[in-house]
Amino acid sequence: MITTDICIIGAGPVGLFAVFEAGLLKMRCHLIDALPQIGGQLSEIYPHKPIYDIPGYPSITAQELIDNQLKQIEPFHPTFSLGERVDALQKQDDGSYIVLGSEGTQIHCQVVVIAGGLGCFEPRKPEILNLENYEGKQVHYMVRDPERFRDQRIVIAGGGDSALDWTIFLSDVAKEVTLVHRSDSFRGAPDSAEKVYHLAQEGKINLLLSHNLQSLNGNGHMESISLINKNKEAIQLDTDHFIPLYGLSPKLGPIADWGLQIDKNAIEVNTFDYSTNIERIFAIGDINTYPGKLKLILCGYHEAALMAQSAFRYVYPDQKLSFKYTTVNGVNAF
Amino acid sequence: MITTDICIIGAGPVGLFAVFEAGLLKMRCHLIDALPQIGGQLSEIYPHKPIYDIPGYPSITAQELIDNQLKQIEPFHPTFSLGERVDALQKQDDGSYIVLGSEGTQIHCQVVVIAGGLGCFEPRKPEILNLENYEGKQVHYMVRDPERFRDQRIVIAGGGDSALDWTIFLSDVAKEVTLVHRSDSFRGAPDSAEKVYHLAQEGKINLLLSHNLQSLNGNGHMESISLINKNKEAIQLDTDHFIPLYGLSPKLGPIADWGLQIDKNAIEVNTFDYSTNIERIFAIGDINTYPGKLKLILCGYHEAALMAQSAFRYVYPDQKLSFKYTTVNGVNAF
Repeated sequence: MITTDICIIGAGPVGLFAVFEAGLLKMRCHLIDALPQIGGQLSEIYPHKPIYDIPGYPSITAQELIDNQLKQIEPFHPTFSLGERVDALQKQDDGSYIVLGSEGTQIHCQVVVIAGGLGCFEPRKPEILNLENYEGKQVHYMVRDPERFRDQRIVIAGGGDSALDWTIFLSDVAKEVTLVHRSDSFRGAPDSAEKVYHLAQEGKINLLLSHNLQSLNGNGHMESISLINKNKEAIQLDTDHFIPLYGLSPKLGPIADWGLQIDKNAIEVNTFDYSTNIERIFAIGDINTYPGKLKLILCGYHEAALMAQSAFRYVYPDQKLSFKYTTVNGVNAF
Repeated sequence: MITTDICIIGAGPVGLFAVFEAGLLKMRCHLIDALPQIGGQLSEIYPHKPIYDIPGYPSITAQELIDNQLKQIEPFHPTFSLGERVDALQKQDDGSYIVLGSEGTQIHCQVVVIAGGLGCFEPRKPEILNLENYEGKQVHYMVRDPERFRDQRIVIAGGGDSALDWTIFLSDVAKEVTLVHRSDSFRGAPDSAEKVYHLAQEGKINLLLSHNLQSLNGNGHMESISLINKNKEAIQLDTDHFIPLYGLSPKLGPIADWGLQIDKNAIEVNTFDYSTNIERIFAIGDINTYPGKLKLILCGYHEAALMAQSAFRYVYPDQKLSFKYTTVNGVNAF
């Protein structure tokens, strides 16, 4: 059993900043995240993309932001359980909670902070015949290890940034890359689209615009994929792997069953401390909702700060909180 | 007459970030500030101090943060009126405002955003006889130009960071520096206090702890200052300048007379868009108040973001706002 002051569900930028704000008030945090690494969406989905709206950073890549935030919370020694979803919360007689992870981890804490971003991510699946037959084998909803596709024939489907970025990246790795998109233009960054057109002109990739997916073909082992173009002509491509990149669709997951007030997949909170309808449970960042809510990282930072002030009374019920500025006192004074 | 979409009163970090958030929605901003330079308190009071609680920056000096924020808003070409206080707002028939500056500048805008920090700063004055006689001549509440004190005899009073920092700095400039403090320990950074003790031991400054101020003496021209120690013994120091550094006390100034709902020197706002009780007037950053309010720069950033979403309808009454992420679209797409 892990014992901590605050258990933070979600190790994205907002969860990490909550460690800082809690730390200033001498509260220690344990973070648990379903993803295998720290950083939430930023590290999982767009680590190399520049972010432009972090105040004070004209531009910073998602992964750099996470790295800087990790450095910022070093003085407070947070601990982590990664690759583990939270399945349930058990309320104790004294008001505290035991958080139960899917891998058996138990975390005893005074306060639970849900900083779960958009929830557990599930890939959006394309409509194509026989998809389920090859999932987890030759169908991949994420590229975790590009090396897996070295010298293989792959078909990528989609028109957003992931599809474009991975097409570009894997054109140097795979033996043969085909990008299939149902429309004749891309939703992703114009820059990336430009690169993809260029690769197609050079013959380094096959680009099939205005093509719809029909079926995956094979018998236990996928051999080919069938498409249909806008003139209703069918084509068949031999391939080793099919990588549909239609984005991730967030699911609240088990959180939906904890009795929290939920509105459109988000947890309703107060704006004075971002507490939920259940005492000692707070929700900050993209997973919460309130009038005026914007799903911006910088808003989650603010929410983390106000949450920490309010959580203090559960961790130190006998103490009066005194508010101090880090500029005056430094971080090590806390 | 300057014409803009949003007139921002206050060019501190929160006012600057409001330019960014407004810019993403194609709203242009003019900023007006009573201080002679951009940066608010950060540039005026503690430019070289590290700040530890800007998310993503384990440490950054106040001036670096301002510099970075200026770079961040470059794409949106903000304009500035500096060294000018806002005296009044004139509501126009069409709902827009003309903002009147103390130096005669007039700014026509659709929305007024008050990001005035703690308001106009006024120095806290010590209780000492004849203070007013020498103000603006030999009594200085701020050190604007250290060279003014070269080879002069000065008496600094106070126990906070300003008093410590200027004692250290001016010990190399002035002919003779005396630091007077009523208590026997300092409120300022332990580091700086250490340096001051050290300078005193080396005989480079005179340090008078547990001394109270009595009077400034002279006849039109200040000649000396009288103090009293804790044994009620009086001493008299010959000096050319007296620099009481007891901090700045914020005053709302003319803002207090505009009909805004004020609570303890702060403007009451909603938390869904940080609007005040007067239509088209918003208040963000340290100058506003609401349940849970924390006077943190990072909270002002959040407030700026929500404000901009709401201000949009006054600037573009016929358009529907579409929310875009900079990570997807970049900054120049806006």
